[in-house]
Amino acid sequence: MSKAYDTEILSVGTELLLGHVTNTDARDISEMLSKIGVNVRYHTVVGDNPQRLEDCVKVAKERADIIITTGGLGPTCDDLTKQILARAFGLELVRNEAEYQGLYEYIQTGRMFTPNNFQQAMLPEGCTVFHNEWGTAPGCAFEKDGKTVIMLPGPPKECNAMFRACVIPYLQKFADGEIVSHSLRIFGLGESTVDQMFRDEMNAMTNPSMAPYAKECDCLLQVTAKAETREEAEEMLKPVIAHVREKLGEFVYGMDVECVEEAVIGLLREKHMRFSAAESCTGGDIAGRFTEIPGASEFFLGGVVTYTNEAKARLLGIDPALIEEKGAVSFEVAKEMAERVRTLMGSDIGVGVTGLAGPDGDGVHEVGTVFVSLATAEQTWVKELHMGAFRTRSFIRRMAGNHVYDMMRRYLTGLNVL
Amino acid sequence: MSKAYDTEILSVGTELLLGHVTNTDARDISEMLSKIGVNVRYHTVVGDNPQRLEDCVKVAKERADIIITTGGLGPTCDDLTKQILARAFGLELVRNEAEYQGLYEYIQTGRMFTPNNFQQAMLPEGCTVFHNEWGTAPGCAFEKDGKTVIMLPGPPKECNAMFRACVIPYLQKFADGEIVSHSLRIFGLGESTVDQMFRDEMNAMTNPSMAPYAKECDCLLQVTAKAETREEAEEMLKPVIAHVREKLGEFVYGMDVECVEEAVIGLLREKHMRFSAAESCTGGDIAGRFTEIPGASEFFLGGVVTYTNEAKARLLGIDPALIEEKGAVSFEVAKEMAERVRTLMGSDIGVGVTGLAGPDGDGVHEVGTVFVSLATAEQTWVKELHMGAFRTRSFIRRMAGNHVYDMMRRYLTGLNVL
Repeated sequence: MSKAYDTEILSVGTELLLGHVTNTDARDISEMLSKIGVNVRYHTVVGDNPQRLEDCVKVAKERADIIITTGGLGPTCDDLTKQILARAFGLELVRNEAEYQGLYEYIQTGRMFTPNNFQQAMLPEGCTVFHNEWGTAPGCAFEKDGKTVIMLPGPPKECNAMFRACVIPYLQKFADGEIVSHSLRIFGLGESTVDQMFRDEMNAMTNPSMAPYAKECDCLLQVTAKAETREEAEEMLKPVIAHVREKLGEFVYGMDVECVEEAVIGLLREKHMRFSAAESCTGGDIAGRFTEIPGASEFFLGGVVTYTNEAKARLLGIDPALIEEKGAVSFEVAKEMAERVRTLMGSDIGVGVTGLAGPDGDGVHEVGTVFVSLATAEQTWVKELHMGAFRTRSFIRRMAGNHVYDMMRRYLTGLNVL
Repeated sequence: MSKAYDTEILSVGTELLLGHVTNTDARDISEMLSKIGVNVRYHTVVGDNPQRLEDCVKVAKERADIIITTGGLGPTCDDLTKQILARAFGLELVRNEAEYQGLYEYIQTGRMFTPNNFQQAMLPEGCTVFHNEWGTAPGCAFEKDGKTVIMLPGPPKECNAMFRACVIPYLQKFADGEIVSHSLRIFGLGESTVDQMFRDEMNAMTNPSMAPYAKECDCLLQVTAKAETREEAEEMLKPVIAHVREKLGEFVYGMDVECVEEAVIGLLREKHMRFSAAESCTGGDIAGRFTEIPGASEFFLGGVVTYTNEAKARLLGIDPALIEEKGAVSFEVAKEMAERVRTLMGSDIGVGVTGLAGPDGDGVHEVGTVFVSLATAEQTWVKELHMGAFRTRSFIRRMAGNHVYDMMRRYLTGLNVL
């Protein structure tokens, strides 16, 4: 950046203030902007209320150079955002013929359409129009009074796609120099431990810089450098990354991946291996998370969700007497689950998980007790976890899955599995 | 409310502005506040920057009566939020002995702890302390200059639990009269259609009121009434709910439920029925979503994730020749999946789903083509869906699941399944 362009994301929608939806637009846009080195300084959310929106625009005009709005463009809110932003910058809304024509053609297809949809073709005079290929409300951008205003529709799919396709190219002119960031993902150490380990170094660094962030069930250390070119920035980061990897060792499960399973898919590809899963308390979550990744089908043969004892017997052939004796939540049953699903599916690796995700217990174990297992042709490993009864069902399920994937990662990279 | 208390939620954390995490705290708090009739007017997010946070506090002080902060309380940010808020209201931070003692005892357990954690016991003089049973950083509240300030830690689990346990009771004094809301959840009609159907009525209503909201794969109509007592508000809502139910008929899948599967679990309980699932393109998502609901184990016998053709043959015994002839993504295979998983598991209902979630196609069908099926002892139904190749993998998977659950709902309530 020749100068720092402070950016504010202003999201419009009463549904956000009522908590009906989460503001993922602001998150997604922020992430994309941080990658091209534009500084997001503020997120604001305001309802479908003209006066309050106008006040928020005033505040944003004072403190930001770039204002990006999301939402308030559809027919259900009378295109509030366009009206207010145009007025705040002294612009008229004029009918855009191409967009009007597009809306008109859309009706001819016989799809659901209501007269108020036509307001969507009214746009601030002289603006750059962002045609919406994922919905009907176009976005737009204009520059006035030394500020840049960008307006996008609210539905996350549309907002996200248009930001990528239209806004990033539009904003390129504000960029000079390149900012490069990498995330080192960490499993098995908490954010505050990581912070403590690197705090003195971090305080002494400016460019490159380094910062830890907590995620739901793991954490990350982000390293960032700014230079004339992308290549130079990458060079600056290399020694920092090497240092972090050395200091954290096997706790680093990957760089620039979103989750442990994403690291695992890369390792399975490398080793030409496939796995299958037998799930009890995670109830399909391990399979579901993995298959959310495009291309997963090559490495995941399938799985069984044996949520009941009956299913464990029927699908996996586990002896009901063993379940009776040891309990469904036990070392032995976890072991059998991984081994049997592996044989049943004919995969290189079988994983299993059985435990208590709560809220109800089984009278034997505390909620949060989970056994996770990994079986190969040579050996089976079982790990007993105690996450604490105060954890939510959803946390316990997610964390159990992370442990399963982390065991796979450790196995596939030749580390100690347990 | 004797007067309207305008509330602003001010979230502090650079990780939010970088898009590393989504601001679920603001969403969760907003939802809880809307239920007790407190009006959230603004959400603001600002980074771990003293000057910008101070400026945001100034703005919030001017426009809001209640300021609720989240984040910026932990050791990694030097308790920025407390420092700035205390200063903005002319208060000193003083050591809270009970919290200090608690932190001291925490160390004795041998858990990870760093010296900077002790800052957490420093709190604004005279504040109400909210002890954090889910983490180490306490929250607090104070009243000054006619404003109420509430500070909570950022980690969603802690923020959420403390809001429920400490803040809601604290805020009761601001409430007089009761606001009651119900959400009618709709599947099969878009938000803008619902908006159009009810627009004139909605414009004419004030109390009770009604508003449509879009969700990712369905939508809802929220009805709200305010009265002296909860009972009176409920009475006011009855005719509105009856009217909406009549006008939308079978498109309403439930009231005050979060998703179709939550409506389904209630129906399965009523009918004493259990189901099982055979999943291909949803890859465990249908099982995973259902088992996320506490108590799901009574109604879900288990399932198979037959992600590959081989798994369809091995686990379900589907004839490879049939898959060869008709294709894995076909009416016939979907039908067999539901029927065979039902028999295999011995459940009342079997459901199946096979399709293309993308991004890669199979050279035959367009991405977004999905067959969903439901089998009972008497009959099997198969529905062919075309969601459009522009949809994301995750949308296609979620929507396919919604269709499966909606078919179950329709079957269980005696409606036409297709």
